[in-house]
Amino acid sequence: MLKIAFAQINPTVGAFDKNYKKIFDFIQKAKFNNVDILIFGELSISGYPPKDLLLQEDFVEKNLEILKKVKNSTDNIAVVLGSIYKKNDKIYNSAFLFYNKKILNIYNKVNLLANSFFNEKKYFSEGSALKYCKFKNYKFFLTLGEDIFCKKITNYIKKEKIDFVINLSAIPFYLEKNKFFYSNLYKIAKSINSFIFFCNLVGGQDEVVFDGNSCVISPYGKIVFLCKSFQEDFGIFEFDKKINYKQLSICNDKVKLVYEALVCSIRDYVSKNNFKSAIVGVSGGIDSAVVASLATAALGKNNVFGLIMPSRFSLASSVSCAKKICENLKINYKIIDIENIFSTIYKIIEPFFLDKKFDVTEENLQSRIRGIILMAFSNKFGHLVLNTGNKSELSCGYSTLYGDLIGGFAILKDIYKTFIYKLAEYINKVAGFLVIPKIVFTKAPSAELRKNQKDTDTLPPYSILDPILKFYLENNLEPKMIAKKGYSVKLVNKIIKMVFLSEFKRKQAPIGPKITYSAIFKQKDLPITNNFF
Amino acid sequence: MLKIAFAQINPTVGAFDKNYKKIFDFIQKAKFNNVDILIFGELSISGYPPKDLLLQEDFVEKNLEILKKVKNSTDNIAVVLGSIYKKNDKIYNSAFLFYNKKILNIYNKVNLLANSFFNEKKYFSEGSALKYCKFKNYKFFLTLGEDIFCKKITNYIKKEKIDFVINLSAIPFYLEKNKFFYSNLYKIAKSINSFIFFCNLVGGQDEVVFDGNSCVISPYGKIVFLCKSFQEDFGIFEFDKKINYKQLSICNDKVKLVYEALVCSIRDYVSKNNFKSAIVGVSGGIDSAVVASLATAALGKNNVFGLIMPSRFSLASSVSCAKKICENLKINYKIIDIENIFSTIYKIIEPFFLDKKFDVTEENLQSRIRGIILMAFSNKFGHLVLNTGNKSELSCGYSTLYGDLIGGFAILKDIYKTFIYKLAEYINKVAGFLVIPKIVFTKAPSAELRKNQKDTDTLPPYSILDPILKFYLENNLEPKMIAKKGYSVKLVNKIIKMVFLSEFKRKQAPIGPKITYSAIFKQKDLPITNNFF
Repeated sequence: MLKIAFAQINPTVGAFDKNYKKIFDFIQKAKFNNVDILIFGELSISGYPPKDLLLQEDFVEKNLEILKKVKNSTDNIAVVLGSIYKKNDKIYNSAFLFYNKKILNIYNKVNLLANSFFNEKKYFSEGSALKYCKFKNYKFFLTLGEDIFCKKITNYIKKEKIDFVINLSAIPFYLEKNKFFYSNLYKIAKSINSFIFFCNLVGGQDEVVFDGNSCVISPYGKIVFLCKSFQEDFGIFEFDKKINYKQLSICNDKVKLVYEALVCSIRDYVSKNNFKSAIVGVSGGIDSAVVASLATAALGKNNVFGLIMPSRFSLASSVSCAKKICENLKINYKIIDIENIFSTIYKIIEPFFLDKKFDVTEENLQSRIRGIILMAFSNKFGHLVLNTGNKSELSCGYSTLYGDLIGGFAILKDIYKTFIYKLAEYINKVAGFLVIPKIVFTKAPSAELRKNQKDTDTLPPYSILDPILKFYLENNLEPKMIAKKGYSVKLVNKIIKMVFLSEFKRKQAPIGPKITYSAIFKQKDLPITNNFF
Repeated sequence: MLKIAFAQINPTVGAFDKNYKKIFDFIQKAKFNNVDILIFGELSISGYPPKDLLLQEDFVEKNLEILKKVKNSTDNIAVVLGSIYKKNDKIYNSAFLFYNKKILNIYNKVNLLANSFFNEKKYFSEGSALKYCKFKNYKFFLTLGEDIFCKKITNYIKKEKIDFVINLSAIPFYLEKNKFFYSNLYKIAKSINSFIFFCNLVGGQDEVVFDGNSCVISPYGKIVFLCKSFQEDFGIFEFDKKINYKQLSICNDKVKLVYEALVCSIRDYVSKNNFKSAIVGVSGGIDSAVVASLATAALGKNNVFGLIMPSRFSLASSVSCAKKICENLKINYKIIDIENIFSTIYKIIEPFFLDKKFDVTEENLQSRIRGIILMAFSNKFGHLVLNTGNKSELSCGYSTLYGDLIGGFAILKDIYKTFIYKLAEYINKVAGFLVIPKIVFTKAPSAELRKNQKDTDTLPPYSILDPILKFYLENNLEPKMIAKKGYSVKLVNKIIKMVFLSEFKRKQAPIGPKITYSAIFKQKDLPITNNFF
């Protein structure tokens, strides 16, 4: 029997001392629990992904210093940990096996990533040598990230007849992860006929959220041990090939998962960037209601501030809804009527407009006044401004640059409007009462920037728009194929045209967490200048 | 003797009919001039780079349709042209040789690019087969872009003893292009001992500007024929191996080149995106003076509008300077004092700020009011807002999000402040009088957002800042190495810290043309969330 523990930690990129403290504490805990092997995730010391910080010599040196300290704290315990490794002036993304203050094995990542989130090839040299580990009569193999899906590695593993594989990863959450990533892990476990100990990072980092969900997969391709999702965890697994483990499974409730991912993402973006609080423009609509709720769950009611900024076009019912939401969340809020500011600016610029009529100029002006006020509160009090836009709007450009597009973090950037209603229902269900009032669900979505405005003046209903966007953005279907799903070719083309023509807005949008496999702001690469659309 | 002509065209991405008209007109011109071979650049039909438009089936089909039309207009003339090519459901980035309405040769690009500007590998399949062309007793070889630097290709060329190589390209301008790109071309010509006919695109496309500068390089590695820079050109070269051609050279005047690149970039961004005019916030400082001058050169004085927006902190001399600049450029301008708007907003939000003092909040507020007004004019009249920020500010985050960071196009985004003074001198020299008044050069740079503010309150003098930024951003020097150039380690580290900590602003900045080899907004990949800096 071997006692194997997972240290599923949430490091902060570049926070070496804080990260070391976490690592050290987990090692102590493991020693106290007589653990044989303690496993950490990929690049646990520096955090992941460090990007161009890896080009800073002092960054790498600091990581190597901590690495030595970790090695020296492994008396009577084996520790497997992901770290930067430097050899002959090259750096590697490596997995170390320490025992009794000695290095027993080093594995350098073979298949370096080069995607829009992390271009490992820019910094790291490729590993090549494969060598299994021996420890207490067990033979096992270290791997990193998606190396475990690589033929060269699995062939080696099969040949060597090892007892288990340890995989250190930093694989972010995305909605289809069960289907795409975990199922692959199950397949690999079966194909190599071996246990896999998969240790992932957890926590938010800019545009990704690591979900944790570290686990043990049996040679039958089943999960037999599972760590928590979206929080740090210390889990001990008693490994004995003879035991018939009970099968577990990863949560499949998409709404719950996304809710947790978003809360985790806000919490970490705020704390890791040394903010203490966030501010949200609360309109009485569903998007801002959900953002305020997520922020409250992430930061606590005392650290979230609502700003209600009605204009002449805001319905009284929207304002009272907005108040109700803030009151239900027990967050501080202020009401600032923007009418006076709007009319002052308008009086000054209108003479220049000659006899031109009320148009999008005046609509945007209201939205931008709100942006200015939110930013003033952010500057004065140090609150992070949370953007409230959603993926449906952002994809079609249905938002105002420097207006509702402002903010430090756009938490709903990758969430379709129709899914936001599901999140709102979930929020009410968890709260046990209507935090978000019923009317917010039933009223027609509107920006309320002109009289009787409705989103459907510009966009098709979200129940039609969202599936079309999904087919286009995520399934990469041709317009013709999308139309075959039951939409008019004209509508499909109109929407795709909107997607292309609004690229200039997305280029200036705040960052936010990737939630779907194909987040438009990372996976799509659209020219602004083009005369095709 | 062979009459070879260059069709150095400026296509617009996706403007198939417009691009075809250009191609057709150049073919007629060539026929009229009894040209034997007419050469176009890379992807001349679709424009370059089409990015995700290549995933649209209708985009590819439209390109192939035009390709057929081009082929059918080659009676009695050979045409070499870059185009999308489709075979067995795969698409290639290809060079075609047409003659008498027939395809004589197709070359599919071998080394597909995968950089931050264009990820060709995402769309195109790789070419492999190499086959020289024969035409009128000449043996030659087609290549595309940087394929010509590839060993496999040059070895083939050497073996086949050809008469010349035709290279179709879409290589953007950058300051060091002579040193990095053209010198390589010279070397290759010598090493393969052959003439190279290099045909480039010209014109602006989002974040790049193609400079044209198509040329003939002799086997001695010398330019013997050269097309214009930054404009379309039709050039005929009479090719005869026995002639001893006179050597020419590409312009080496960096200020002139950058000036032309920026003018071309504005002109094309505006026209290709169907704008007719641009608006610039003119402050009386050097940046906005240069932007207004560039815009006037690009669009004509009737299509550029100046907006002068003094606040209580603007010096009278700045306002009069701003007026003088607009008057010298003969552009329309308006003056809108923002004091009234500022005090209205301030009166409304100040009570919420309790007894907190005047700080960056009030500074940013002024800048953001200007942003709102510029955007209102843009919305009402359809002017493109030209951003006036420079690379020094942007690198250090010395700018206001949603304030002076707004705009559709940030033309000086990759130009250091010290270089802007050189551009301003050049502008005055070309004009033959002080378009930009003397005082603009001599006064200390200031954002004028509080009393007696100077840029040097926050930043080191630009004469110190710019070289440090350059060493760091372009030469990728370690802080230690930069310090050795004669700066204090503390200062160098302070600046690098500013670069990292302002990444969140750059993420929301407008796009603008890349001018240096290592434009910070494309080449650097910095995490926002990090505790190292």
